Amino acid sequence: MNTICWRNGKIQFIDQTRLPHETVVLETDDYQCIVAALKTLQIRGAPAIGVAAAYAVAAGAAKVETDSPAEFLSELDNICRTVASARPTAVNLFWAIERMRKAVQGETVAEMKASLLAEAKRMEAEDAEVNRKIGRFGAELIPDGATVLTHCNAGALATVTYGTALGVIRAAKEQGKTLQVYADETRPLLQGARLTAWELMQDNIPVTLITDNMAGHFLHKGVITCAIVGADRIAANGDVANKIGTYSVAVLAAENGVPFYVAAPTSTIDMALATGDEIPIEERSPEEVTCIGGVRVAPEGVAVANPAFDVTPHHYVSAIITEKGVAQEPYVERLREIIGGSS
Amino acid sequence: MNTICWRNGKIQFIDQTRLPHETVVLETDDYQCIVAALKTLQIRGAPAIGVAAAYAVAAGAAKVETDSPAEFLSELDNICRTVASARPTAVNLFWAIERMRKAVQGETVAEMKASLLAEAKRMEAEDAEVNRKIGRFGAELIPDGATVLTHCNAGALATVTYGTALGVIRAAKEQGKTLQVYADETRPLLQGARLTAWELMQDNIPVTLITDNMAGHFLHKGVITCAIVGADRIAANGDVANKIGTYSVAVLAAENGVPFYVAAPTSTIDMALATGDEIPIEERSPEEVTCIGGVRVAPEGVAVANPAFDVTPHHYVSAIITEKGVAQEPYVERLREIIGGSS
Repeated sequence: MNTICWRNGKIQFIDQTRLPHETVVLETDDYQCIVAALKTLQIRGAPAIGVAAAYAVAAGAAKVETDSPAEFLSELDNICRTVASARPTAVNLFWAIERMRKAVQGETVAEMKASLLAEAKRMEAEDAEVNRKIGRFGAELIPDGATVLTHCNAGALATVTYGTALGVIRAAKEQGKTLQVYADETRPLLQGARLTAWELMQDNIPVTLITDNMAGHFLHKGVITCAIVGADRIAANGDVANKIGTYSVAVLAAENGVPFYVAAPTSTIDMALATGDEIPIEERSPEEVTCIGGVRVAPEGVAVANPAFDVTPHHYVSAIITEKGVAQEPYVERLREIIGGSS
Repeated sequence: MNTICWRNGKIQFIDQTRLPHETVVLETDDYQCIVAALKTLQIRGAPAIGVAAAYAVAAGAAKVETDSPAEFLSELDNICRTVASARPTAVNLFWAIERMRKAVQGETVAEMKASLLAEAKRMEAEDAEVNRKIGRFGAELIPDGATVLTHCNAGALATVTYGTALGVIRAAKEQGKTLQVYADETRPLLQGARLTAWELMQDNIPVTLITDNMAGHFLHKGVITCAIVGADRIAANGDVANKIGTYSVAVLAAENGVPFYVAAPTSTIDMALATGDEIPIEERSPEEVTCIGGVRVAPEGVAVANPAFDVTPHHYVSAIITEKGVAQEPYVERLREIIGGSS
C-alpha cells in the first residue's frame, strides 16, 4: 500500500513510529489527527508530509458544516493555518497547503469540498509519478557495482511510494545494476535503522546498517561509491536542508572525493529563499536524545540540543536530482531553469 | 575513588556499563574477571585499560602456586598472553603488560609476586600524575569562555582519575577559566551520554549532550571553539586511532577552521608503527548497533558493520598533548623528541 492514501472516505497511513517491529495502518477523517501524526512523526519525510497536509485540508474541509461559501472559505483558512503549524522545516507542507488553497473551485460548498479532495488525490498520484522520474534521472549517476551511502529515510515511507533517494537506488536496480547500500542509523529517531534498512530488506537490496559516526570512516576507507540523500527544503542557491547529520556526510564525502547527491521533487525547492541560512530549523524535544525506545541513556537533568535538520551549503552538493532533470552548479541558474521549465 | 585501584588484596573497579544509572564498584582477585571486564567494557579507556592489565597480571601472578621461579615465569607468560588477548586497538594494554614483564625482580617467587604488585601500584599512581600534567599543558590551549567539543569519554573513567581530554577541561576550569562542553553521545555504546555527561555534571562543568551527527552542524555554526579527544593508539607519524567517529569530528573541525586536539599519555604512542594504517581496528558485535539498552531498534537479520575505532590522519590533528609536552607537526620528529626526552 501507499504510505498515505484515501480509502473509504478516510485518510489511511502507515504509523512509522511502530516500524520495523510492526506494520500498523491507521485511518482517520479528523484532520487534527493528521496534524498530530505529523508532529509525532507517525508521518514524516518531506513529500509524504506534503500529501498528508493536502489530505488533512481536504478532510478538515469535508467536515465544515455550512452552506455559505464565505463561511466555508473562512473555516478553510483556519484549517490551513492549523495544518501549516505542524512542522516548520519541510517546505512541502506549505507548498501543499498553498496548492490546496488555489484548488478550491465551484459555486457551492459541496463543489468546493469535492474540488479539494480531488486535488489531494491528484497530489498523491503525482508524487508516485514524480518519484519514478527522479529515480530514472538519478539512476544514470549510479555506476554498476556501486556501494551507496544514505542518511535518514528518503524512501517509500518518506513519500507516497518508491522514494526519492531510495527511488534512485530502486531505479538503478531495476535497470539491472548490482548495488548495495550503507545506511546511517540516523539518531536520534533512527529512521535509517528502523525504516531504510527495513525498506531495503523488503526489496532484497543488500543493506549494511552503520551508526552515523561510522560514515566518515567508510568514506575514508574507499568503501563508498557515492552518497545520496533526500531534502526537506532547497534554497534558490542550492543549499539543502535535510535531516541532521546530512551536512557532515556531505563534507566527509567531499573530503574523500566521493559524489554527494540530493534527490527531491521540485516541490522541495523554495525559490523564495536566496540561501539556506534563511531556512527555519526545527528544534525537537530533549527526550528524543536522552531516551531510546523508552530506555533512558543519559543522566537525569542533562542539557540537550536537538536540531532536527541541518543545512548543507551548495558547494558540497554534486547534483540535485528532480523529476524535471538533474541540476548542477551554478544552482542559482540551473534551479531557476528547472522550476521554470515544464515537466 | 579511582576508576581502578588495589584495596584489601583485591582489584576494585567501577562497572562502567551500569553508569549513569547506578555507581557499582566490583572487586576481584581473579585476573580472568578483569579480562572479561575489559572485553565487556566494564573497564574501558586506553589508560584505564593499561592499569587494569597491570593489576590483572599482578593478581594472576599472585595466585600461581609454585616455589620454582622458572615455573612461575612460565605461568606468568601465559597470564600475560591471556590479558593481551582482551582487546586489540589500545596500545596501553600491551605497553602495560610489557612493563610488567620487565618489572619482575627477586630471587624467590614471593619476591617476584611482590615486585609485580608494586609495579602495578606504581602504574596506578603514575597515571593519576600523568593526567594532571596533560591537563596543565593542555589548559594553555583552551581560551577563556571556550565551548569545547569532545567525543566518547576520555575522562576520569577512561583513566585512573582526572582524565586526559576531560583532564585538560578540568585543568582549564581550575585555572579559573569559564568554559562549557558539547559532548557527542558516541554511538553505539553511548560513552558520551552515559559517562562524559555524567562526569562533567558531577564536577559542575556545563555540558550539552548532542548526537554524533550534530557535531558538524555546531562546528559549522561557529558554536565550537575547539575539539579535544583522547586516543587509543598514536602512530609514529601522529596518526591517531580513537573511538569511531573521531575521524569525522577532525575533518569537520578542519573544514570549519576549528582546532582539533588529542590528549594522551606517551604510553599511547606506538613508535613501532610508522602510520595509522597499521593499527588493528577492533570489530565488535552487531548487537551493539541493533540494540540499545536491551531494546531492539533495527530489523531482525540486518547486516551491520561495527568498527570500534577509526584512524585520524595526522594532518587533521592541531596538537597532541602529552605529559611531556605538546607536539605539533612535523609529528614524526616531535613525537620522537618527546618519547626520547625525560619527563
